[in-house]
Amino acid sequence: MGRTKKKVCIVGSGNWGSAIAKIVGANTVKFNTKFEERVTMYVYEEMINGKKLTEIINEQHENVKYLPGHKLPENVVAVPDLIEAAKDADFLIFVIPHQFIRTLCATLLGKIKPTAVGLSLIKGFDQGDGKSIELISKIIENLLKIQCYVLMGANLANEVAEGKFCETTIGCKDKRTAPLLRDMIQTENFRVVVVEDADAVEVCGALKNIVACGAGFVDGLGLGDNTKAAVIRLGLMEMVKFVDTFYGGSKLSTFFESCGVADLITTCYGGRNRRVCEQFVTSGKTIKQLEDELLAGQKLQGPATADEVHTMLVNRGATDKFPLFTAVHRICIAELKPAEFIDQIRSHPEHVMRLDGVIEDDDEGAA
Amino acid sequence: MGRTKKKVCIVGSGNWGSAIAKIVGANTVKFNTKFEERVTMYVYEEMINGKKLTEIINEQHENVKYLPGHKLPENVVAVPDLIEAAKDADFLIFVIPHQFIRTLCATLLGKIKPTAVGLSLIKGFDQGDGKSIELISKIIENLLKIQCYVLMGANLANEVAEGKFCETTIGCKDKRTAPLLRDMIQTENFRVVVVEDADAVEVCGALKNIVACGAGFVDGLGLGDNTKAAVIRLGLMEMVKFVDTFYGGSKLSTFFESCGVADLITTCYGGRNRRVCEQFVTSGKTIKQLEDELLAGQKLQGPATADEVHTMLVNRGATDKFPLFTAVHRICIAELKPAEFIDQIRSHPEHVMRLDGVIEDDDEGAA
Repeated sequence: MGRTKKKVCIVGSGNWGSAIAKIVGANTVKFNTKFEERVTMYVYEEMINGKKLTEIINEQHENVKYLPGHKLPENVVAVPDLIEAAKDADFLIFVIPHQFIRTLCATLLGKIKPTAVGLSLIKGFDQGDGKSIELISKIIENLLKIQCYVLMGANLANEVAEGKFCETTIGCKDKRTAPLLRDMIQTENFRVVVVEDADAVEVCGALKNIVACGAGFVDGLGLGDNTKAAVIRLGLMEMVKFVDTFYGGSKLSTFFESCGVADLITTCYGGRNRRVCEQFVTSGKTIKQLEDELLAGQKLQGPATADEVHTMLVNRGATDKFPLFTAVHRICIAELKPAEFIDQIRSHPEHVMRLDGVIEDDDEGAA
Repeated sequence: MGRTKKKVCIVGSGNWGSAIAKIVGANTVKFNTKFEERVTMYVYEEMINGKKLTEIINEQHENVKYLPGHKLPENVVAVPDLIEAAKDADFLIFVIPHQFIRTLCATLLGKIKPTAVGLSLIKGFDQGDGKSIELISKIIENLLKIQCYVLMGANLANEVAEGKFCETTIGCKDKRTAPLLRDMIQTENFRVVVVEDADAVEVCGALKNIVACGAGFVDGLGLGDNTKAAVIRLGLMEMVKFVDTFYGGSKLSTFFESCGVADLITTCYGGRNRRVCEQFVTSGKTIKQLEDELLAGQKLQGPATADEVHTMLVNRGATDKFPLFTAVHRICIAELKPAEFIDQIRSHPEHVMRLDGVIEDDDEGAA
């Protein structure tokens, strides 16, 4: 990338997309020697009380549907045409529901700058060929022939929009691009750590929801603080093992970043996967019933991700290394009762003796 | 240690000591080829409704004062005389308030088996010479001339006594002793991981309370889930840095054990340091006032540990590497207002770019 000012396009305008637009719009003004101040935001057009959402955003500078009560910077311009919004952008920030990414990329192919760089804020996996999972950033890279980095963290959109202090993690291998990404994203209250392990960062953002289902089961079963901490920790260990097994070469320290332990904690104490899975236990209803009742038919991410991951683990013959992920899936599809959850993780492969760097587990002692 | 059956003494009989006695008593029966079934428990004698506590425990097999409602195994024998309780023991499990450890060791010196092995369940530091801190296990080792290992984890005593599923971490370098310690401690619901980094395990058990104070401030200030997750994560990073700086050579993986991330989570969501520090913010009272009102004058561990750690950091010129620990201390002694907490950690040394293994932080970009 040369020395000209960089143009930024935000592809998406939901709750999180609008919150990040608030930040990026302010930063392109602050660093206007590096960035074009004007930021385009692709908005899927819809009518709100007889008026186009893009017009409302461009006149009132507020996304009244998805982030009401927050002014967007005036240099953030809503554009209803995807190609128009993205065409000159040096940075494309992807923040749409993950099921739309393939169609969106098909529309954009050949219509963007070949030197553009993507930054995906999209959480969740793509089912790929049905036997494995694919990372959203890899789909973007493959379909658009550009580099795509990721941003994940303990970042509830409304709290970010309110300017409450938090941290985020950017996964980016490119030393030249990383400082620009940070300038685009970091504020006094939204603190950035850049790491190289982009795959680990992205995988954490999807797997945490499986663990949150486990935390919800524990809450529903009334098992207490110790048990919940153990489930969260074992879930974290399976996240580490999953990245190590399928995306080797990551650093353990990446799991200590906001994308790892911090996002996991928030999700296991506050998130909706936890909440719905708690009700799954206490109500006896199916996940599908609860999705219909509580989420207006929207799919809950944890059970869906657990299903995708389970398919992959079965195909790789690796279910026994991931007893927690496996149990969450089997409980969600009613193959196991919630009360059987703990029995599945009691003799977890993590319960070993780690001495002299050798991991050993003599079975004689264990109960 | 030879092939004779090992004798176990539990030095202490509070809430946690009684819970662990329940486990150890069952395990010495289960593994009675390795252990003497009879387990002595040193009980500080007191009168309960005109009857000696030791007599109550030995007749009713219940510690009616400190763990009411739970039967202790009949092979656990309460002994009011410390020397009598400990004299033939091969394993001494220390589980008393940390301020009594020096006096207790002075009483025991020369009266125990020279080959005895200690296992400390005591959380908190000793103030040592007033300029630094000393680990309780090191005090035991130095005063009693025995080896002393540690056990820490997300282990609320009542939940452990109820047999709710949880994990714990034993820090033990000795490959010969570790399997015996595990057999003594592990049950179906109390799962053990043995690691070599005993110092890191013990330090985590003390420092977590400082972080919990920070979490309590965040709750009191009403700052939300993102901020709380960031504070817990930055606290964890300072725990890692503290161990690395003062007890070098630990593995990062140790902080992923129950003694690390799991105990920290439980303490920051459920513990009393969090609770009192939340009230510190909302009530405007001093820590001392709250200790008097809520803890019957008992000292809250977080502020005390923050004070000890601060003294050490000042003496080593290292306060700037630990802005969260430092801010917690300064807020507890009213040198800073709680509302200033976030300003102290906003530009944390952890907020950097970690690329190509080099940690760099160009200040130009940061807000």
